[in-house]
Amino acid sequence: MAKYPGTLVELLRDAPTNWGRWGQNDEVGSLNFLTAAEILRGIQSVQYGKSFTLMLQLGHPAGEPLWPGRNPSGHFMNQDKGKYETKKIEPVPGGCSYADDILIVGLHGTTHCDALAHTWYDDRAWNGIAADKSKGGLEQANILAIAERGIVGHAVLLDVARYQGVPYLPMHQQVTLDDLLQTAKQQKVEIKKHDIIIWRTGIFNLFYQEGAAVFNREFDEPGITYEPELIDWFHDMEIPVNASDILSGEQTNTATAEAGLPLHAALSRNLGVVFIEAHWLEKWAEDCAQDHKYDGLYVAAPLKINGGTASPVNPIIVK
Amino acid sequence: MAKYPGTLVELLRDAPTNWGRWGQNDEVGSLNFLTAAEILRGIQSVQYGKSFTLMLQLGHPAGEPLWPGRNPSGHFMNQDKGKYETKKIEPVPGGCSYADDILIVGLHGTTHCDALAHTWYDDRAWNGIAADKSKGGLEQANILAIAERGIVGHAVLLDVARYQGVPYLPMHQQVTLDDLLQTAKQQKVEIKKHDIIIWRTGIFNLFYQEGAAVFNREFDEPGITYEPELIDWFHDMEIPVNASDILSGEQTNTATAEAGLPLHAALSRNLGVVFIEAHWLEKWAEDCAQDHKYDGLYVAAPLKINGGTASPVNPIIVK
Amino acid sequence: MAKYPGTLVELLRDAPTNWGRWGQNDEVGSLNFLTAAEILRGIQSVQYGKSFTLMLQLGHPAGEPLWPGRNPSGHFMNQDKGKYETKKIEPVPGGCSYADDILIVGLHGTTHCDALAHTWYDDRAWNGIAADKSKGGLEQANILAIAERGIVGHAVLLDVARYQGVPYLPMHQQVTLDDLLQTAKQQKVEIKKHDIIIWRTGIFNLFYQEGAAVFNREFDEPGITYEPELIDWFHDMEIPVNASDILSGEQTNTATAEAGLPLHAALSRNLGVVFIEAHWLEKWAEDCAQDHKYDGLYVAAPLKINGGTASPVNPIIVK
Amino acid sequence: MAKYPGTLVELLRDAPTNWGRWGQNDEVGSLNFLTAAEILRGIQSVQYGKSFTLMLQLGHPAGEPLWPGRNPSGHFMNQDKGKYETKKIEPVPGGCSYADDILIVGLHGTTHCDALAHTWYDDRAWNGIAADKSKGGLEQANILAIAERGIVGHAVLLDVARYQGVPYLPMHQQVTLDDLLQTAKQQKVEIKKHDIIIWRTGIFNLFYQEGAAVFNREFDEPGITYEPELIDWFHDMEIPVNASDILSGEQTNTATAEAGLPLHAALSRNLGVVFIEAHWLEKWAEDCAQDHKYDGLYVAAPLKINGGTASPVNPIIVK
Repeated sequence: MAKYPGTLVELLRDAPTNWGRWGQNDEVGSLNFLTAAEILRGIQSVQYGKSFTLMLQLGHPAGEPLWPGRNPSGHFMNQDKGKYETKKIEPVPGGCSYADDILIVGLHGTTHCDALAHTWYDDRAWNGIAADKSKGGLEQANILAIAERGIVGHAVLLDVARYQGVPYLPMHQQVTLDDLLQTAKQQKVEIKKHDIIIWRTGIFNLFYQEGAAVFNREFDEPGITYEPELIDWFHDMEIPVNASDILSGEQTNTATAEAGLPLHAALSRNLGVVFIEAHWLEKWAEDCAQDHKYDGLYVAAPLKINGGTASPVNPIIVK
Repeated sequence: MAKYPGTLVELLRDAPTNWGRWGQNDEVGSLNFLTAAEILRGIQSVQYGKSFTLMLQLGHPAGEPLWPGRNPSGHFMNQDKGKYETKKIEPVPGGCSYADDILIVGLHGTTHCDALAHTWYDDRAWNGIAADKSKGGLEQANILAIAERGIVGHAVLLDVARYQGVPYLPMHQQVTLDDLLQTAKQQKVEIKKHDIIIWRTGIFNLFYQEGAAVFNREFDEPGITYEPELIDWFHDMEIPVNASDILSGEQTNTATAEAGLPLHAALSRNLGVVFIEAHWLEKWAEDCAQDHKYDGLYVAAPLKINGGTASPVNPIIVK
Repeated sequence: MAKYPGTLVELLRDAPTNWGRWGQNDEVGSLNFLTAAEILRGIQSVQYGKSFTLMLQLGHPAGEPLWPGRNPSGHFMNQDKGKYETKKIEPVPGGCSYADDILIVGLHGTTHCDALAHTWYDDRAWNGIAADKSKGGLEQANILAIAERGIVGHAVLLDVARYQGVPYLPMHQQVTLDDLLQTAKQQKVEIKKHDIIIWRTGIFNLFYQEGAAVFNREFDEPGITYEPELIDWFHDMEIPVNASDILSGEQTNTATAEAGLPLHAALSRNLGVVFIEAHWLEKWAEDCAQDHKYDGLYVAAPLKINGGTASPVNPIIVK
Repeated sequence: MAKYPGTLVELLRDAPTNWGRWGQNDEVGSLNFLTAAEILRGIQSVQYGKSFTLMLQLGHPAGEPLWPGRNPSGHFMNQDKGKYETKKIEPVPGGCSYADDILIVGLHGTTHCDALAHTWYDDRAWNGIAADKSKGGLEQANILAIAERGIVGHAVLLDVARYQGVPYLPMHQQVTLDDLLQTAKQQKVEIKKHDIIIWRTGIFNLFYQEGAAVFNREFDEPGITYEPELIDWFHDMEIPVNASDILSGEQTNTATAEAGLPLHAALSRNLGVVFIEAHWLEKWAEDCAQDHKYDGLYVAAPLKINGGTASPVNPIIVK
């Protein structure tokens, strides 16, 4: 099949946009759909009082899945018992001692939430913000805006891999809108307006089972990619968050368009949909397959990093 | 008043402990009190669908309040629009461009959750874990254990500063158990077993209004400190989390005991109470003072840092 | 005395420049004066086989003198004996064990060599390089160019503080060209063309003796600053390197001109003189005062940091 | 050939040692051989006034050769022209602007000098220092001791690869003492007592020509390894520095002994020979092959990192 041709400007000339919808100064985009009513809808979806945390592990013995060229996080002790033993430091009077450490982390490594101005084309990011404002730290629509607000809403898991009967979707595979809808149908879950959509590929199983070398050699993650219908669906459904268990948040090398990263463009930059990437969904998905309850309250709180393009985050589902 | 004398071993010889209560291998301590029933109690306390994020800002123009000797976080751009302008990097085919950055952060800077093995005395941390295991990264009861579980429960704000009619409690001031209980009484809120307790001193107003120099010159934060009754109350009430808006989590220089950091010892190390420190409570507290609803659902998800002694965290309250 | 008015453009309109002198693509400026003959002159000045290292200490117990707003370096262990004791790592078969660590360092903290394109005005850096090229890392005239070449030459110490009979020049004090020449005269040392000039204020004695708080409270380092005669002298003498024991490399708040950092402009940006800042000169200067030999072979080798604006460096004098 | 069996304790039971030779508190070992006379011998060997810098490039577009598991350095801009353009910062009054940046570097990445207490066996490092003292930062014989002294002496290049007629010695190949001596003989250079020995394998040509993947897949660098005669030769010749162009400083997987890293043990830990690893020798070696002068003055000045196990360094040869 021929790919949709052209640059993002050409490809998305008639695509929907939410620029200006929430004012000239808006920095959180489609998170505006998460009103108090939506928060309450999330709250009301909780039945069992079970919770799941959805972050990958930093410093996992098997390594960290990473976009090629990025480096893993670094965790270093500043003080531990050994430093006391050698008298380099002394306990607090009375005997209390403590360990201390630092973290160095790429803001798009591990599970993370993108700021809306993280990506741009045609020199404009979300809501028309000049790309120039990214210089030396995002001036507007940076992760601080999202972190100040927090993300609380009703989420639905779309377990595409399980629906297709595989432990993980293979590299290179497109996930279509139809795949999402069929998965929902099979799961007997209705996607409603303003739902946070979390689609599962299971691809990190490849990383942890086959190792970083295999994962990186084939790196072209499966995922949703450009379809006009998909864009319209996100727009019509007023989806606030595009959540997934891949690093890219969309199919790495799009099967459908010549332009790269078309969904960062069409969804995040144009519609203000927030991308939360690289979730670890295995435990929650397993639980959903057991009890057939695929929804719940989703709470994600990025760190308040002034100027940041993203933040690591440990989203929580309560069901 | 004479201070309680002696080392922590002496001071806490007869103090209550929860070691072994949840098995030899437990790493999350009093978070075990946060059962599904407690999560549901938190859920049910939500009335309005309002949420508040409780983290301090990294990279705030006024600086970051920090325990003396610690350094502020560093946020550095890896790529921004300027790097594209100078052709050091090229946009993705089709025109998509993106900014990228890293964060260097002390795990006990900013708002953070302590791991249970972060502090120890008598060579033992929570549940009897050997202090030795802190070497090169906490082996047990590190922040990963808490991050895998997440913290979800019912929380109560005790706005001690507002109760005492001040914008912030002055440096050096002790907050007694009686202060907490009187505050609750005046607020007409009942503290129940397993509630997450969040007490407010407002001290960061001093930092942001008077500046880092003043804050650091006087550094001896107000807060709760050693009283046998306070320890017993935490124990009897089975409080899972000690949350506050000070860096130390307890009065820095205890007014009541010769041994330093007695509450890290009595509450965290012995009872397994999780300390979440340095919340930014101003907006939520203001809201509570308006609507007189001082409780809500509390969700905190530290980062999954393998071996970490703590993690920055952006707790969320939903009310 | 009225200060010279105006911007750098105005102030330096008729000041000398070396742009183009070594070709359009030159990135090392006045280091070109350090020819083989000059290296041999440095070599021939060695009499005793004594050497001195001139770097400040990173991680000094008393802290690191730093330009306000900069953070000290961080040194963190990755592995030490404690990590072996707890079996987190194993010795190499046969028993060899090793410690490992990382360093985080601001490139203008500690003793460091500036790249020629580190500073600019009127949108041009050394040799006419567009300031734009600094975006995302210096593209030209970065520290790599200097580090690839290395700095080897004949150096002369001008111990202004000792000449003036003080342990250190006070904050705010200007060092004039006449001060430099009178110091040389008193020392009975002749400054020759192409000499590396190292002038001593002793100001770090204030830091180490009085502490960081005092040093920072008064921060306005003594040093040379704008005089037309001084610029001409550097130009006529073809001085390759301006070396000093202050953080700024020139008087912080110039006593003579309205424009700030006039010597970074006139010497580094216009003449291509390399600034090496924050030397620790105490031991060498003491030795010079003893044997009255104030010159020697100077060797400085910045790290080869691609794109870097500077590098920490540990210069060596051999006399 | 059967390998020498046994642990390092067994292997080196009768091997020579310099412990105590320079007192109980010595931290620089065989650098003590570099007396003023030796510095002068280095000085006197300079004929042409040519200099070469011997460090690898940090941030090289092709990457950085690294011991498996280590991460490349990170260089990040703190401010550049883009930050001024967007008014996040303002020029100094008068128009001076400047760029600023940081470096994160593993101390055993790139060209670096090992501290003497970096490695140990039988719980003792150089001069009997307890391995315990490595906890939380090397307490003794750390890189500060070497950096305070500096390394200045007479060096000889032994271009083994060129002698053997190859662009680089293949992975896995042992370099024997006889190889070193035959190389010297063919080069017509006499190795004298106290010479700094620099042997060239050329292996980084593999990295830069074939790429990191090939280099790492085969990682088992060529180099000298355990031979009783080699140890004796270093001892008898009182060699102060073992310098090479491989990451390991000795053959990675020794061809001759069961115990790993036997030369770190026999030379560095026992004799106090300083290892300077991962030189970039190509330009200098090419020059030596042209003019047949294989010696010169060697100057290396590690950074003064208090507690550090090593430091990146940019050694300079003057010939």
